[in-house]
Amino acid sequence: MKRAYNVKCVDFTTAGIKVVVMNKEDAIDLDVGAMDRIEIVKDEKVITAVIDLTDTFVPRGTLGLFREAYTRLGAKDGDTVYVKPKEKPSSVKYIKQKMNGVRLTKEQIYEIIGDLMKEELSDVELTAFITAVYIRGLNDSETIALTNAVVDSGGKLHLNAKQIFDKHCIGGVAGNRTTMLVVPIVAAAGLTIPKTSSRAITSPAGTADVMEVLAPVSLSKDDIEEVVNKTGGCIVWGGAVNLAAADDKLIRIRHPLALDPRGMLLASILAKKKAVGATHVIIDIPIGEGAKIKTRSDAKELAKQFNGLGKALDMEVHSLLTDGDHPIGMAIGPSIEAIEILKILGGKDVSPELKEKSALLAGILLELGKVVPEGKGRDAAIKLIDSGKANKKFREIIEMQGGDPEVKPDDIEIGKISYTVRAEQSGRIEHIDNRGISAVVRGAGAPNDKRAGLYLHVEDGDKVKTGQELFTIYANSERKIDQALDVYKERRPIRFSKIILESLD
Amino acid sequence: MKRAYNVKCVDFTTAGIKVVVMNKEDAIDLDVGAMDRIEIVKDEKVITAVIDLTDTFVPRGTLGLFREAYTRLGAKDGDTVYVKPKEKPSSVKYIKQKMNGVRLTKEQIYEIIGDLMKEELSDVELTAFITAVYIRGLNDSETIALTNAVVDSGGKLHLNAKQIFDKHCIGGVAGNRTTMLVVPIVAAAGLTIPKTSSRAITSPAGTADVMEVLAPVSLSKDDIEEVVNKTGGCIVWGGAVNLAAADDKLIRIRHPLALDPRGMLLASILAKKKAVGATHVIIDIPIGEGAKIKTRSDAKELAKQFNGLGKALDMEVHSLLTDGDHPIGMAIGPSIEAIEILKILGGKDVSPELKEKSALLAGILLELGKVVPEGKGRDAAIKLIDSGKANKKFREIIEMQGGDPEVKPDDIEIGKISYTVRAEQSGRIEHIDNRGISAVVRGAGAPNDKRAGLYLHVEDGDKVKTGQELFTIYANSERKIDQALDVYKERRPIRFSKIILESLD
Repeated sequence: MKRAYNVKCVDFTTAGIKVVVMNKEDAIDLDVGAMDRIEIVKDEKVITAVIDLTDTFVPRGTLGLFREAYTRLGAKDGDTVYVKPKEKPSSVKYIKQKMNGVRLTKEQIYEIIGDLMKEELSDVELTAFITAVYIRGLNDSETIALTNAVVDSGGKLHLNAKQIFDKHCIGGVAGNRTTMLVVPIVAAAGLTIPKTSSRAITSPAGTADVMEVLAPVSLSKDDIEEVVNKTGGCIVWGGAVNLAAADDKLIRIRHPLALDPRGMLLASILAKKKAVGATHVIIDIPIGEGAKIKTRSDAKELAKQFNGLGKALDMEVHSLLTDGDHPIGMAIGPSIEAIEILKILGGKDVSPELKEKSALLAGILLELGKVVPEGKGRDAAIKLIDSGKANKKFREIIEMQGGDPEVKPDDIEIGKISYTVRAEQSGRIEHIDNRGISAVVRGAGAPNDKRAGLYLHVEDGDKVKTGQELFTIYANSERKIDQALDVYKERRPIRFSKIILESLD
Repeated sequence: MKRAYNVKCVDFTTAGIKVVVMNKEDAIDLDVGAMDRIEIVKDEKVITAVIDLTDTFVPRGTLGLFREAYTRLGAKDGDTVYVKPKEKPSSVKYIKQKMNGVRLTKEQIYEIIGDLMKEELSDVELTAFITAVYIRGLNDSETIALTNAVVDSGGKLHLNAKQIFDKHCIGGVAGNRTTMLVVPIVAAAGLTIPKTSSRAITSPAGTADVMEVLAPVSLSKDDIEEVVNKTGGCIVWGGAVNLAAADDKLIRIRHPLALDPRGMLLASILAKKKAVGATHVIIDIPIGEGAKIKTRSDAKELAKQFNGLGKALDMEVHSLLTDGDHPIGMAIGPSIEAIEILKILGGKDVSPELKEKSALLAGILLELGKVVPEGKGRDAAIKLIDSGKANKKFREIIEMQGGDPEVKPDDIEIGKISYTVRAEQSGRIEHIDNRGISAVVRGAGAPNDKRAGLYLHVEDGDKVKTGQELFTIYANSERKIDQALDVYKERRPIRFSKIILESLD
């Protein structure tokens, strides 16, 4: 059954499979229902879409195409398209198979990811797949197949170096901007480290947001290759290139459900490493109350999986369990973190824990790259910072990415209004909560307002007196300062040690 | 954070949770992302909606409301509404709990169904729930809670009778129009049987479609109560009243995935019986290749569950395993089936298997209702047909529902063009496939064209000669006849016994 329709544009973009709006009477005629698939043909162009029904939005004989389908078909209002019902793709059968607990073959996983990329799967089908993977799990060979399918779904970097180094952090720790020190250290030692980073989703700053204060981060694949081939490193936004493209489409559904099926998490991370051609990778797994991984045994299990899957994917993966209980850097927020990085590389004694952690991570990469003997990596990394070599390399990278290589900490603007919160009591700081502090900085307007931020004046374990400075908030309006303070009062992220825990009558 | 926006109507209806279209910049400002929830307030009206993002469809400061949200808020274009981010409802936590294999309490199930009814759940969340139930299953107490929650989600019939009888068929068998005989037989015996039926979804005719040839079937709850209190029975379309309202919302997602999680299937069927106040129910479970249930052991398991759950829900449920391998009635299609029913009730000797099966089913209800002693039900039912009492009762029901009680078989119009397919070989009919025959009738235009249909001239086991009539197709255009014949040639639903199964060189 095939029918001709006029076209009307619904000027509104949807993600995922194309949606068309069809008059209910037309749907009955075509023997299709809501959420059924149709094939739409115009000249040589063919797309698949799912049907949404309407009584009034389009009359009989007219098909409402959302902007993207409209563009894809090269249609104009009033043009004629031909429509016929279309069967579900066989990947829907494989999704059901996974629900039933049947292992998927490599070919079936490739077909699911292929249909995802061709936008042949509806949100309902994709959700069923992710839920099934969450409940049933993926075994090693399925995870490997998924990783390879995700890698093949997008572009790959082609670099001159034979050995390519990379790092990844599982995340959840405020001020943990190690990438911006690790990349210049490792590149200064002559190794190649093409780092793609993300923007903040639920945090006040992602590495891409911080780097963007200093240089453009939305580079094309060609530009990235040029920057890395010349300088040995880069810090760019992964979202601007289509490496591991299927991953974004999976995350679109995983995010609202807060579903991180283990197999998909592993595939997502390793696919991004594989797509840049990484041969040696370190994974930073912070453990702690406010971090993504809560217990050491969970972290160990995850590390084992990373290392094993890395091997199967021809990558040497080293996982590191790190302390993720409290903020690492003292500065939190895009601009203020960028300043902190420039200061550390410029030899200033700020955020010592961030410097030390970065040197430890970079040190392992230096050892893996045989630049220094085993056990000497951390010291060599510190030396590359203190000698100014890492600073020089960082500025080369900034320049190649299109930023100002002469930028000084003072050049970077931060929120013009500040407010300092002081201790209301004397005592010892027992704990500074990552999530609470992050929420305060988001309250001040980060990451959208890059100048919004927070500087911690105290660390876990510090003894403070009443009236001593705890932290300073920076924002661009009194309203934003108030908003950040409201979050602070609600979350109370800085906890003092108590001697009397509770007083009972 | 709360913001004011102008309103613009997107004149297009979506099912499920309300969707609003927000400018990307506005979303960043409000610190919300795609698929996040917001609360929209106008005067005293409050709705929850999920966000879809746009670059251009609405400018900053304007919110695109789909028709339903627009109506619900009583908004006009240019009106101001207030918006703030909203947390996910706690039912989302329970859905995740089910994914994790944790049993749900009665209260949690009520909350999920409550949020579903308030349209607080997105399609992604609802799909995750259904997938989790499919994979993890529901235990008895969960199924009972779900059934009660679904019953309480809609209206209930309030009838005068103390004992209420009902029947249900699991479906999948062509021409299996027993309801239209069982209801008049049982009502003629003085029992009360308020039957709500469905329209065809994938079949060429649902009972509601066939009854609609004779009388209106979209009755209000009040009208149904009046018809049943006066005549003892009715045959109406369940979709027109909001009995077990949550069920339709679950089916909206289950249908495109073809997911019938056992617990939901049971809850869906029993909730509809409970909502009409049923005290005695028979469930017809056809078993066969082309039916929904393929094996006798599956059917037995299902019957056991129905009977057990019925008890827990204060209903006496009797499940019957029936032969579902081939079409039951000779007529298939809305009008032609209505004619067949009038003929059987009028004493004509047509579709003997349909008459016999209906008498067996009605007979059990007569025995349950103590109208006849055990073992005498079938004969009493046959007598009620042959005496004309069931016919008289049927016409009372037709009249009360608003149809013509004097209708004669010849008054009913069927497709003006017919075509008879004849045997191309001699032999014995080994099998007539339900699904294939149904597909041929849909090809002719049923159920939308009520006059499209098919009459079988042969049954399983019949000996036929070359050139003998197999079946006649009725449709309203040559094109539809051709379409039906194309389906016939592709599906070959009438299979002859073979002596030589295969010829090898």
